[in-house]
Amino acid sequence: MIIDEQLARQVVTKRQANSHKGTYGRVLLIGGFYPYGGAIIMSALACVKSGAGLVTVATERDNITALHAHLPETMAFDCEDKELFEENLIKADVVLVGPGLSENSKASRVFKQVLEKVSEHQSLIIDGSALNLLAKTMPLSFNTDHLVLTPHQKEWERLSGLAISEQTVDNTRKALENFPKETILVAKSHRTQIFQDQLLAEFTVGGPYQATGGMGDTLCGMIAGFVAQFRKNYFDSVAVATYLHSYIADQLSKEAYVVLPTTISAALPKVMKQLSE
Amino acid sequence: MIIDEQLARQVVTKRQANSHKGTYGRVLLIGGFYPYGGAIIMSALACVKSGAGLVTVATERDNITALHAHLPETMAFDCEDKELFEENLIKADVVLVGPGLSENSKASRVFKQVLEKVSEHQSLIIDGSALNLLAKTMPLSFNTDHLVLTPHQKEWERLSGLAISEQTVDNTRKALENFPKETILVAKSHRTQIFQDQLLAEFTVGGPYQATGGMGDTLCGMIAGFVAQFRKNYFDSVAVATYLHSYIADQLSKEAYVVLPTTISAALPKVMKQLSE
Amino acid sequence: MIIDEQLARQVVTKRQANSHKGTYGRVLLIGGFYPYGGAIIMSALACVKSGAGLVTVATERDNITALHAHLPETMAFDCEDKELFEENLIKADVVLVGPGLSENSKASRVFKQVLEKVSEHQSLIIDGSALNLLAKTMPLSFNTDHLVLTPHQKEWERLSGLAISEQTVDNTRKALENFPKETILVAKSHRTQIFQDQLLAEFTVGGPYQATGGMGDTLCGMIAGFVAQFRKNYFDSVAVATYLHSYIADQLSKEAYVVLPTTISAALPKVMKQLSE
Amino acid sequence: MIIDEQLARQVVTKRQANSHKGTYGRVLLIGGFYPYGGAIIMSALACVKSGAGLVTVATERDNITALHAHLPETMAFDCEDKELFEENLIKADVVLVGPGLSENSKASRVFKQVLEKVSEHQSLIIDGSALNLLAKTMPLSFNTDHLVLTPHQKEWERLSGLAISEQTVDNTRKALENFPKETILVAKSHRTQIFQDQLLAEFTVGGPYQATGGMGDTLCGMIAGFVAQFRKNYFDSVAVATYLHSYIADQLSKEAYVVLPTTISAALPKVMKQLSE
Repeated sequence: MIIDEQLARQVVTKRQANSHKGTYGRVLLIGGFYPYGGAIIMSALACVKSGAGLVTVATERDNITALHAHLPETMAFDCEDKELFEENLIKADVVLVGPGLSENSKASRVFKQVLEKVSEHQSLIIDGSALNLLAKTMPLSFNTDHLVLTPHQKEWERLSGLAISEQTVDNTRKALENFPKETILVAKSHRTQIFQDQLLAEFTVGGPYQATGGMGDTLCGMIAGFVAQFRKNYFDSVAVATYLHSYIADQLSKEAYVVLPTTISAALPKVMKQLSE
Repeated sequence: MIIDEQLARQVVTKRQANSHKGTYGRVLLIGGFYPYGGAIIMSALACVKSGAGLVTVATERDNITALHAHLPETMAFDCEDKELFEENLIKADVVLVGPGLSENSKASRVFKQVLEKVSEHQSLIIDGSALNLLAKTMPLSFNTDHLVLTPHQKEWERLSGLAISEQTVDNTRKALENFPKETILVAKSHRTQIFQDQLLAEFTVGGPYQATGGMGDTLCGMIAGFVAQFRKNYFDSVAVATYLHSYIADQLSKEAYVVLPTTISAALPKVMKQLSE
Repeated sequence: MIIDEQLARQVVTKRQANSHKGTYGRVLLIGGFYPYGGAIIMSALACVKSGAGLVTVATERDNITALHAHLPETMAFDCEDKELFEENLIKADVVLVGPGLSENSKASRVFKQVLEKVSEHQSLIIDGSALNLLAKTMPLSFNTDHLVLTPHQKEWERLSGLAISEQTVDNTRKALENFPKETILVAKSHRTQIFQDQLLAEFTVGGPYQATGGMGDTLCGMIAGFVAQFRKNYFDSVAVATYLHSYIADQLSKEAYVVLPTTISAALPKVMKQLSE
Repeated sequence: MIIDEQLARQVVTKRQANSHKGTYGRVLLIGGFYPYGGAIIMSALACVKSGAGLVTVATERDNITALHAHLPETMAFDCEDKELFEENLIKADVVLVGPGLSENSKASRVFKQVLEKVSEHQSLIIDGSALNLLAKTMPLSFNTDHLVLTPHQKEWERLSGLAISEQTVDNTRKALENFPKETILVAKSHRTQIFQDQLLAEFTVGGPYQATGGMGDTLCGMIAGFVAQFRKNYFDSVAVATYLHSYIADQLSKEAYVVLPTTISAALPKVMKQLSE
């Protein structure tokens, strides 16, 4: 299956007049621990600008000012504030954990708590260092079937046991059977593929102007935003978010040697508007 | 009564040559307590860009850097600095309390102090969590008749006792009788209505691209800015501020799937200029 | 004497090919004490964007992050770091003291130190709360003749003893005799006048769209930048900086109901380029 | 040898489809110590926007928020965190030390550690105060031949012993013999020259609109970005980065009296795109 503008137009539909913030989902983003504070800022920019209803960031206290300098639109708190953390974890429709989470003991504790507290009505997106933390604790069971994994090749190696050279479609499909059946895998590479059970989606957009730090943080923020808003078909939502990330980079690359992640987020409202018409 | 561009043009008039900062009012904005720091930043952006003469923000110390990163044009201090707080509370022409205030004991204390210290020559706008704090202490008397309340439906439920399904025009009018006669109620919903005694104003602009976090913080900041500047007719000023918030969102939505609150504030100087001509 | 575009073109001349940072002056800006941190940020933006060679800001530690979020081009340190303060005070060609300095004991101490350490080869610009501090200690002698005072009417009242209604040209000239003969007075009002001995300059640009907080901070930052660069004729430099501040506001007001101070600074490089051709 | 657009086009080539972040290099930037925090922010902006694969900043904790307010795309940590420092120093392909490093004992310690830990597969760029620290410890041996020095005239005087008036091509070549044979010297002045052994490159772009604080910090950040990406010919990469810095300033000066360093970085993606076609 090739993801193209037509599928994007099917996912990014015109909003209903009678809707409100709640209609577009509560998203909780967890990460940005020192020294990776910037990562969760990029995820938040992508998530808010893709149209999620209400975006909250659980990070470290020191990171909140920089986040708010970019994005006063988010609520933000210290992961160590247990009450806020639990309350927001429970209220969220979508939880993204991992961008700049690091792999230290605090990160492990936070990640473990997420896995324990998440429930079946919630979508859980696992990215970056949280994938490495997951690799260390597999096999385990998940409280939700709405699982999205966004590993690059090295992270997928740790998670699946497949060396990069062995990461064929068949092998990856097989490895994916260790996860809940509806798990969506965004296998990132210079030719990213999206898997779910027997489904496989690819696209032809994207290029080497995306080879710069922070692209993954932006991508998973977009996926969180899309899953929060477009719940009819999770696979299509994830696939289109991933496609659009590269599609926008393509557009921007006409006037940029390197496409910075934050410029992709900045372009989201306009591009999504065009698709929705 | 339908608010339209014509009324907006009557309110947003050309400035008098012989005027100065004081002519356009001193506004004190109170809120942005952890973890809601971004809220008061959005209110301040809206207030300054709508043209208030002098805008001061009472928040938490930790929130000042992010505020100044957006808006060095504001003075900002820690709510806990009693002397600064009292001094600025007394000097203000307009006080807005509530955006990101939260409902903890510090918030209660601050809100109580505002209710006590505010005097009849001042306008008081109560928004967000301050409305919930108010609901807990009603009935009470107010030191000023220039009162603006900006609840969304749930907040109005708490304040009026009317379940959302019961919030008809008649019921809301009746509930409003518990407040000083000149109180202006901005009853926010996907079809916002503005009440004052027997007056009722509505408008036809606005849409679901506004369904994103921070819209309310921006709206009450605009109302504060308008009340500070356009004092001939408070009801019209509040009505036009509310109308313009959605009017600008409409304009921006032509090129944006979701309209971020801060982009509405950014558009204010240009749109108000056009209306004033 | 009417300041106009012609005089502006005489002052803002094309730069010499063989020049370097030092040619355009070292400026030290002092102020931005809590709760007025934003003031010195606006002065710094104006000073850097008007082309000063090297701009250093002495403020409070807490204010440095917001400043650098706007302007990494400045060096910035805590006024309380005596060694840095003295070293930079001595090295500066131009010292601006006052924007957001406040009038507490720390401010008094800092201001006193400036008056003591400044020497005759340096230009000293006194603005805002530093003018009030000065009023308290007058009469005194100054170590430099290159003095610029930028009071608004109330500050000039405190400094000169002249009630606002008495601030005629003749009375102001007379009061100015209490200062060194070459002292330049920028008497700010809605019809700002610039005095030096028997010289008097005025202009016809500017308007009520400038009636918003931070205008004065931006103006004195521009004056510092102009004095640092254009030393042939101090009076003309100060006069043209003041003129340009309102001239740019005029231009911007064609598309803005209120002209924010930071937007004036942002327009400086382009407008000055046009004048220099 | 004159550096011109043709050489720039040879260096800034189209990226290979099959590439990833690693292809474009890991860069570690070290500096921005109080009171020079802004310096490393400008270097980082230049480095990221020139297309380096992954940029990490070692600075002081207090400087991270301002950096991330500009550039969440960078990872950033406190130089004093030994583990992070060593780990990132070893992983880097390119190390830039010096922008805003200052010359105090901490700076000395950090610089010494860099000289000790750097290895022959790494490029080392020494700028600003690190050049003064180097001058104090010369002669010494270097662990890598890929050395770039970016002194202005006064720094070169300290490093070479040549008074500014003695800094002729011949004398500078001779002094350069005290460094490893492949060392590239960017001798900054209003007529910057780039040396390597018997090579000498110059260019005719650039002008006095560049005479403002932070230009050097931006230049060395660009050099780091170019060295990280374009490794076929180090001399050409450094020469073209230096050329482009002034070339872009030239372009921007058509609409700006003074060209701020950060505006050069902002223009990089577009200009490099044009060159790569």
